[in-house]
Amino acid sequence: MVSTEITLTAQFYDLDPMGVVWHGNYARFLEQVRCQLLDNIGYNYAEMQASGYIWPIVDMQMKFIRPIRFHQKFVISATILESANRLKIEYIIRDHASGEVLTKATTTQVAVEVSTNELCLESPTALTDKLKDLS
Amino acid sequence: MVSTEITLTAQFYDLDPMGVVWHGNYARFLEQVRCQLLDNIGYNYAEMQASGYIWPIVDMQMKFIRPIRFHQKFVISATILESANRLKIEYIIRDHASGEVLTKATTTQVAVEVSTNELCLESPTALTDKLKDLS
Amino acid sequence: MVSTEITLTAQFYDLDPMGVVWHGNYARFLEQVRCQLLDNIGYNYAEMQASGYIWPIVDMQMKFIRPIRFHQKFVISATILESANRLKIEYIIRDHASGEVLTKATTTQVAVEVSTNELCLESPTALTDKLKDLS
Amino acid sequence: MVSTEITLTAQFYDLDPMGVVWHGNYARFLEQVRCQLLDNIGYNYAEMQASGYIWPIVDMQMKFIRPIRFHQKFVISATILESANRLKIEYIIRDHASGEVLTKATTTQVAVEVSTNELCLESPTALTDKLKDLS
Repeated sequence: MVSTEITLTAQFYDLDPMGVVWHGNYARFLEQVRCQLLDNIGYNYAEMQASGYIWPIVDMQMKFIRPIRFHQKFVISATILESANRLKIEYIIRDHASGEVLTKATTTQVAVEVSTNELCLESPTALTDKLKDLS
Repeated sequence: MVSTEITLTAQFYDLDPMGVVWHGNYARFLEQVRCQLLDNIGYNYAEMQASGYIWPIVDMQMKFIRPIRFHQKFVISATILESANRLKIEYIIRDHASGEVLTKATTTQVAVEVSTNELCLESPTALTDKLKDLS
Repeated sequence: MVSTEITLTAQFYDLDPMGVVWHGNYARFLEQVRCQLLDNIGYNYAEMQASGYIWPIVDMQMKFIRPIRFHQKFVISATILESANRLKIEYIIRDHASGEVLTKATTTQVAVEVSTNELCLESPTALTDKLKDLS
Repeated sequence: MVSTEITLTAQFYDLDPMGVVWHGNYARFLEQVRCQLLDNIGYNYAEMQASGYIWPIVDMQMKFIRPIRFHQKFVISATILESANRLKIEYIIRDHASGEVLTKATTTQVAVEVSTNELCLESPTALTDKLKDLS
């Protein structure tokens, strides 16, 4: 299972008038850990473009279980759930101190061939070969 | 069915390096039309707080069907799907010119009583009475 | 004098925990009215790129005089102050109801020739000709 | 001289269609290092509020000298320039690898007494005593 995690601290600019992280800001947190995951695989934005594919996000789902407050440290894990036909990643955000689950999320990306602008029904080997190397 | 819509134009600051609206920015679009819907009902943030409840978002789901580009005009509709136990709103984003569906989304909010910090399993009458008046 | 203005309403996502628009969000407001100004001139991002130049912002200054609160309507004007050697634009944000000045700002952009990646010490005629037509 | 620094990496969500960090996103970088500086002093948002003052930003100035690109590591320093009558902080962003200066900025904050909503012409001792302890 390909997985990674990062630790972040909620910043003032993340907060809304309720004093908690505004729900729309979590997409940044997910992207930051997703990019680290893709870096670890050796298939981040630069390699995607070099391989002739872009990987737009077609689905994003988030469950907000407990709020995150100013200065709170939290850990986000990202784990690849599916890769054969699309790239589905699961995220879990936990409080750094207690380990309590704060947020769960998934994102789904599909490959689009740049030259034809066509959606790939199977993930290109540019991705799947990288993942084979790791398993 | 309680519903409303707004028309927006994609700004430069909404775009990512692919030249399309970054997926994380859609939460702002949803919030803008949701606030107009809540204003129409007479139960937006000021009235929520006055009623003794806050309504955090506990679930957000988005399907990105077609990208939105610089200067593209799009229409977002927001429709209340459920209100008895939680407030579930459905959003559809369409291209302004063609009417083509670009994005579908839902958000779910639950009432939390400020004085007790307790989650309400039924929506408080502060909301449901407003909706009765409209139907 | 080339000038334009737009009217905006402060959204929930613009606010910080103090309940006022977070200072970092004003860059979006400036960009929105600047784009309308550049559209009016006929020299916005698409035309810039077609003309062989990009126009990065090299200086931005903001004075925050009075806060903007949730649902407050405000008017932003943008006026070209200089264009011969660089594009300097002045912005004034006023409360929609009272006309009171809330914020003052300037941005300065310089032309960079895409083919050579060189900074232009004089603004290219691609811009200055458009402005001549207007005066 | 009271000073601190942090190291950040440009994320995908920081970038604009030109592939460089969008100028409006630098306010987040400044705030992150400013908060670390205020933490070091022992006078961040929680202590500000406990002391009976808020410290809105009344002036922000930025000079963008060189762009920041995807995955580029950069160091931001924050140094207190003035504190007697207002809190003026200078920021310098440098490329992590070369040390080259990328951006210069300042922010100015003034104290507002919460109970009276009045601007303080002299910085309250709540701040200046903290700084005396450090020098």
